[in-house]
Amino acid sequence: MKKRVAVLGATGIVGQRFVSLLGDHPWFDLVTVAASERSIGKKYCDAVKWVIEKPIPKKVAELELSPISSDIAKEKIDIVFTALPADIAKDIEIELARKGIVVVSNASSMRLEPDIPLINPEVNADHIEIIEYQRRIRNWDGAIIKVPNCTTAILTLSLKPIVDEFGIKKVIVATMQALSGAGLTGVPSMFILDNIIPFIEGEEEKVENESKKILGELKSSGIEPNNSFLVSASCHRVMVFRRTHGICFL
Amino acid sequence: MKKRVAVLGATGIVGQRFVSLLGDHPWFDLVTVAASERSIGKKYCDAVKWVIEKPIPKKVAELELSPISSDIAKEKIDIVFTALPADIAKDIEIELARKGIVVVSNASSMRLEPDIPLINPEVNADHIEIIEYQRRIRNWDGAIIKVPNCTTAILTLSLKPIVDEFGIKKVIVATMQALSGAGLTGVPSMFILDNIIPFIEGEEEKVENESKKILGELKSSGIEPNNSFLVSASCHRVMVFRRTHGICFL
Amino acid sequence: MKKRVAVLGATGIVGQRFVSLLGDHPWFDLVTVAASERSIGKKYCDAVKWVIEKPIPKKVAELELSPISSDIAKEKIDIVFTALPADIAKDIEIELARKGIVVVSNASSMRLEPDIPLINPEVNADHIEIIEYQRRIRNWDGAIIKVPNCTTAILTLSLKPIVDEFGIKKVIVATMQALSGAGLTGVPSMFILDNIIPFIEGEEEKVENESKKILGELKSSGIEPNNSFLVSASCHRVMVFRRTHGICFL
Amino acid sequence: MKKRVAVLGATGIVGQRFVSLLGDHPWFDLVTVAASERSIGKKYCDAVKWVIEKPIPKKVAELELSPISSDIAKEKIDIVFTALPADIAKDIEIELARKGIVVVSNASSMRLEPDIPLINPEVNADHIEIIEYQRRIRNWDGAIIKVPNCTTAILTLSLKPIVDEFGIKKVIVATMQALSGAGLTGVPSMFILDNIIPFIEGEEEKVENESKKILGELKSSGIEPNNSFLVSASCHRVMVFRRTHGICFL
Repeated sequence: MKKRVAVLGATGIVGQRFVSLLGDHPWFDLVTVAASERSIGKKYCDAVKWVIEKPIPKKVAELELSPISSDIAKEKIDIVFTALPADIAKDIEIELARKGIVVVSNASSMRLEPDIPLINPEVNADHIEIIEYQRRIRNWDGAIIKVPNCTTAILTLSLKPIVDEFGIKKVIVATMQALSGAGLTGVPSMFILDNIIPFIEGEEEKVENESKKILGELKSSGIEPNNSFLVSASCHRVMVFRRTHGICFL
Repeated sequence: MKKRVAVLGATGIVGQRFVSLLGDHPWFDLVTVAASERSIGKKYCDAVKWVIEKPIPKKVAELELSPISSDIAKEKIDIVFTALPADIAKDIEIELARKGIVVVSNASSMRLEPDIPLINPEVNADHIEIIEYQRRIRNWDGAIIKVPNCTTAILTLSLKPIVDEFGIKKVIVATMQALSGAGLTGVPSMFILDNIIPFIEGEEEKVENESKKILGELKSSGIEPNNSFLVSASCHRVMVFRRTHGICFL
Repeated sequence: MKKRVAVLGATGIVGQRFVSLLGDHPWFDLVTVAASERSIGKKYCDAVKWVIEKPIPKKVAELELSPISSDIAKEKIDIVFTALPADIAKDIEIELARKGIVVVSNASSMRLEPDIPLINPEVNADHIEIIEYQRRIRNWDGAIIKVPNCTTAILTLSLKPIVDEFGIKKVIVATMQALSGAGLTGVPSMFILDNIIPFIEGEEEKVENESKKILGELKSSGIEPNNSFLVSASCHRVMVFRRTHGICFL
Repeated sequence: MKKRVAVLGATGIVGQRFVSLLGDHPWFDLVTVAASERSIGKKYCDAVKWVIEKPIPKKVAELELSPISSDIAKEKIDIVFTALPADIAKDIEIELARKGIVVVSNASSMRLEPDIPLINPEVNADHIEIIEYQRRIRNWDGAIIKVPNCTTAILTLSLKPIVDEFGIKKVIVATMQALSGAGLTGVPSMFILDNIIPFIEGEEEKVENESKKILGELKSSGIEPNNSFLVSASCHRVMVFRRTHGICFL
């Protein structure tokens, strides 16, 4: 029995990736794609500016785009994947969880709340258990599960075995991040041609705080961040399509 | 006595060029800069993302941004230079002309109307005389004067002496146009990295129609386009900052 | 029975493409790869700076690089594919043909000689028959077959049906060509960043002359170029990895 | 009385910078420009592929290129600026010093020898005094003075006041270096388009060793490197024309 799933924010670059991965997946049946107002009612293939290397999964191409609203719960959705901007994600994700839906979210909102698991599967899969606590204190049947910031995901994967074997006191990290991380239209070409941009708003804080949470410990009253080390991140945007590079010193 | 001038759309890439050229000009006194809502009331130097090679002229840097409205006429402005998007330019330019102001406009609206001079100074400076006719039929004291599409300006400069000496039957032109022509944020980097874009909306029609008008003839009832030749344009966006290249065959 | 084949110039960008296409081919057995002096004796995978999207075919990766010499004929090679620079290609290709080997060559040398077929398979496959004449007048048992210039290949494919149905008097073509056409190290980054290069040495002549030959006619005394139309080409290098774009007017 | 000076390696990117700075300089008279074999005898302006933003100084444009040889000493040169590759620089610089000429060199050879001053003027101008010692032990009347690696120059300028006031134990530095540092043709465009290159041969060692020497101490028997701190450098090439960026942590 496949799980019925929806993607919110399906036409953006993260949404496209969700669609590409879920479209022909053996476990999931992607039945609903939702996007912002100007795309509602259009066929997915007509509304999207597709940039993924593989073609749009056939059956998704023909789906009609729904509004971004918790009304999609009516379609007996089991799981909603959200690729929404943080500011509009928060409310709708809470409404969906209240309607009993499991929300897997790329939005940065709520990532640091102690009852919300921030999962990098190879690193802290056990943090998923905090959902029991989340349901109890939030009084809902659904769940909100967060995907970390992209750079943090790579970093914590590298740090995990070192933390476990030796411990870490200080992490110094410099990143050279791809354009794709800013979204399809996030970086105007005139700002990046013959340039690097040595600042990405909010990114350095995300790398620092999310790393500590992902490498933190599951406690009965929430995830306890690992505060045994310092993180100092310096994040740059470079003119590279989708491969991000980082170096880190301990 | 310097002319008192204003720039509308002063924070965009064309507006910045106007500001750079007018800021310390011996004939003009730039007294008003206007921009869209989110900049109103800010100092010019705080609101603008300046990309011109020379610094912001000192006295303009300190000017407070006004709203885009024909109310600027109250400030005894002689000439308004507009760098507005075509859709919002039309109405305000007409209002300004009605209030007796001379409007020099980069916006593409009204460029093809027979009583509106479309001036490429080295090519058709005499077309400016159509303003008398414009004032009579439009019943206003101001004037609207249009600057042509950038690619058309270069093309007609090359064609003028050939048209005069030999005549032309057909012009085939292929362009490779800089990013700056699309405005500061017009071309997202993910669309142009490792790419050329073989279509620029509306550009080919502009090159064709404006070329014929610029090389046309001043008649008592308006500018008569030169229809003695055909123009076939093929316009491409390339990842170059501000130098546009074109080739043309006759 | 597979044909035994060799690739000369196997480490360059065209040579890599040959290796990628031939390495696991059902008709061909790639037994020899040859390259310039500094690579001789190294394993192919150690000497090459591989840039093709698919990995190096396994069995080719382990081949030892031979010198570029007609001595490879001793290895009972049926067909040699050459991706050599034009200046060193000519002599060795003639020697190989004299030793009875069929040479399929990307080098521009000899492309315009009337007894040398210049084949764009979808367009002029019948020109292959000129080999009989070539063998007779050159007095050899092998053969030399040329692959056209890359831009010409695309152009003639587009022109062929039009020439056949309607005839053509004049072809005007503007190209925006990828970096790969200049070879792996052909275009220094400082020359192309924030730039297009409106000249590629020899390219315009190749497009003009090779188009006429490919669209020409097989006669008993050689290929007769199609001189019924003029070609005017204007070739540009742009900062694009491997996709060349061209527009053409008739 | 102006000093008579020569530039060796005058057509490369560093040589061009020397020519641009020296061509109209009030203290120096640039009388000789020398370059590699294929340019000898040509006028400078015909041989050079000029990429500097300002035009070629007029009188240099007309100079005829000489061979790279210590014979230029015959022209009563006071100072030679060399922008030669390290491997050919060493011998000729020694010959020139023996002939009594002061050599100011950008080549990396000999930079770490204790009697050769490695000068970053704002940081260690006093190291120039080691020339007395150099002349004594090398038994020559000329001198060899080295310019540091470009990245090291920026780094040591930042470190100097911190070293003086507080001392430093460890320096961690990540660089994003411009194409110009690799020379005019040093980075093929196919290697850097849509990429960063996280390795520059020899660069990390230069940053580490030269920083210690520049921040070292002038002793009677040579410059003593400052070994009181560790340097860990991680150097990247990025697709930027000429502005290098680095970040450093202490």
